[in-house]
Amino acid sequence: MLDPRVARRVRLLALDVDGVLTDNGVYIGAAGGGERVELKRFDIQDGLGLALLDGTGIRVAIISGRRSEATALRARELRIDDVLQDSGARKVPLLASLLDKHGLGWDEVAFVGDDLADVPVMQRVGLPIAVANAVPEMKAIAAYVTEASGGRGAVREVVTAVLRARDEYDAAVARYLAARDGHDS
Amino acid sequence: MLDPRVARRVRLLALDVDGVLTDNGVYIGAAGGGERVELKRFDIQDGLGLALLDGTGIRVAIISGRRSEATALRARELRIDDVLQDSGARKVPLLASLLDKHGLGWDEVAFVGDDLADVPVMQRVGLPIAVANAVPEMKAIAAYVTEASGGRGAVREVVTAVLRARDEYDAAVARYLAARDGHDS
Amino acid sequence: MLDPRVARRVRLLALDVDGVLTDNGVYIGAAGGGERVELKRFDIQDGLGLALLDGTGIRVAIISGRRSEATALRARELRIDDVLQDSGARKVPLLASLLDKHGLGWDEVAFVGDDLADVPVMQRVGLPIAVANAVPEMKAIAAYVTEASGGRGAVREVVTAVLRARDEYDAAVARYLAARDGHDS
Amino acid sequence: MLDPRVARRVRLLALDVDGVLTDNGVYIGAAGGGERVELKRFDIQDGLGLALLDGTGIRVAIISGRRSEATALRARELRIDDVLQDSGARKVPLLASLLDKHGLGWDEVAFVGDDLADVPVMQRVGLPIAVANAVPEMKAIAAYVTEASGGRGAVREVVTAVLRARDEYDAAVARYLAARDGHDS
Repeated sequence: MLDPRVARRVRLLALDVDGVLTDNGVYIGAAGGGERVELKRFDIQDGLGLALLDGTGIRVAIISGRRSEATALRARELRIDDVLQDSGARKVPLLASLLDKHGLGWDEVAFVGDDLADVPVMQRVGLPIAVANAVPEMKAIAAYVTEASGGRGAVREVVTAVLRARDEYDAAVARYLAARDGHDS
Repeated sequence: MLDPRVARRVRLLALDVDGVLTDNGVYIGAAGGGERVELKRFDIQDGLGLALLDGTGIRVAIISGRRSEATALRARELRIDDVLQDSGARKVPLLASLLDKHGLGWDEVAFVGDDLADVPVMQRVGLPIAVANAVPEMKAIAAYVTEASGGRGAVREVVTAVLRARDEYDAAVARYLAARDGHDS
Repeated sequence: MLDPRVARRVRLLALDVDGVLTDNGVYIGAAGGGERVELKRFDIQDGLGLALLDGTGIRVAIISGRRSEATALRARELRIDDVLQDSGARKVPLLASLLDKHGLGWDEVAFVGDDLADVPVMQRVGLPIAVANAVPEMKAIAAYVTEASGGRGAVREVVTAVLRARDEYDAAVARYLAARDGHDS
Repeated sequence: MLDPRVARRVRLLALDVDGVLTDNGVYIGAAGGGERVELKRFDIQDGLGLALLDGTGIRVAIISGRRSEATALRARELRIDDVLQDSGARKVPLLASLLDKHGLGWDEVAFVGDDLADVPVMQRVGLPIAVANAVPEMKAIAAYVTEASGGRGAVREVVTAVLRARDEYDAAVARYLAARDGHDS
């Protein structure tokens, strides 16, 4: 269970991509003998989870340590505006500039990660979260470790846990359903 | 076990896509640096299950809360005529117009879903079914929860269960096999 | 354990594709918004298993109930000459014509399948084999059910079991290794 | 636990691809009806593991028994210079020429493999390693068998085990983190 006081302070949910929004797999190859192809496998239930944050005042950002068009395309579909990718996996300066842009403090950030590249960020944010498939170094410094694995519902679990700790889950579901019921659309 | 009276009333099997015909994964990326690619993983045994419905008087429709060319392509291969996709996941009006078109009632519909976007539809149909990987809110209102997961035989299990409850399974298999035996083709 | 007398009679190993050489998944979608893409996931250890049949006098054929360029491409890589695909899943006439072409009898065929479309073939061949993920109707008429699932080593297991029952496994491995040792190439 | 004396002698980590850097799956198919597509699924945590070897004096090489553009593309991303692929799976001469080029001996090589094609190499190197999904013939001659499967962290586990046996793991992690902390970049 998340500490309600910590959860209520969250104004930004920052997500690592590989191992968090995916199961750490990257599908690489070529089409027609030469054209590079790269795919990642995202989870649709995670996507609905992020939609539940609409209207809660919690922003979503992606902080990746690897550049990938797959990440940019999925972020666009999820209508996530802040997608920060650095091929050298230097995530602290990336997130620092984002906090500056939105006038947020480190203690207002929930961050979800899985590997060593996330450690420096985890040590700074208010709510550091590791996925079930995270390396031991990450789990050791996490305030919350998900039961679900990355790409298999870990982000959905985080959204649900944060909203429940804030006592906002039922309202978020009701809002989501009302917008999709035949009588309301 | 499905209630035979409910199963016998079914004239439309309506299927959600992500998490039902797939395991909720969506493979997104780019080819050649820019061309968007999106794939979904469908299950061949599910496809044969839908073929078993030929000649039973049960129609099949797809009701998706997300637009995807992958869904349209798979539906064409399965010769499913009614493929309804709404990017805002408003499924009730979609299904209502389909029932109107075919002169069917909500109580004649078996619907298979996995996530919150399916709740409003589940509350209206005669036979609401949740897959093994459905969210708790869906399982709570389902008349039947599959043992198999979406994309791993859940739809095949539904077809088998419905036909068995109607006492039509053996005849459907015999019909399928007769059409593929060397003596008959 | 396979019956050695049955295994020694085998001159053709005929393989279904979906659910046997794959895990029944088919990845379907579009590139660039319109171009249809279809992929299947094959197993490299299965491929090495088929290479072990070189020099044993056992031919390999593919008998699929669905047309797919993916199957044709993988067959070419495995140097399988006989690739028979029928979109209506009528496999008995396909296999009958192949036996005719090579002067083989039904009792000289080992066939590996997973679903109802394979039943008519299974009822005719000398060595009917079902994979671990086969439907109950298939397992009921199989002389051998693999422990491994399709696309996860089932074909490799079949090759190993057949060669062991014929007492030819060690020789096949030795032949394979000798051709790849530095001293011999 | 690896023998520290053996681990300290390692100057080259040579990796098979299929079944080691992947889970033995190969995704094959066509785009637009004709253009061949081939993808492999690599693991991002494995990639970070290889990055931990920077500065340790251990080179990385890929020795594959199958030609694939997917392998070449992933190797480029991981900045692995020595990528040797032979479609006939004759790996001993490949590795022999590489050792010659870098002035290394067979006893300075750690090799990770999964299938029969790797046996001749395993019999020559100083540290032969089999993955969890390796065939029995490989495990029988391995000095170390990973707990993780190929494509699911096996290579990361090997890197961690080798560095720990050399007592260099903590320093490698510290070096990796220092380069990614906001204060240092």
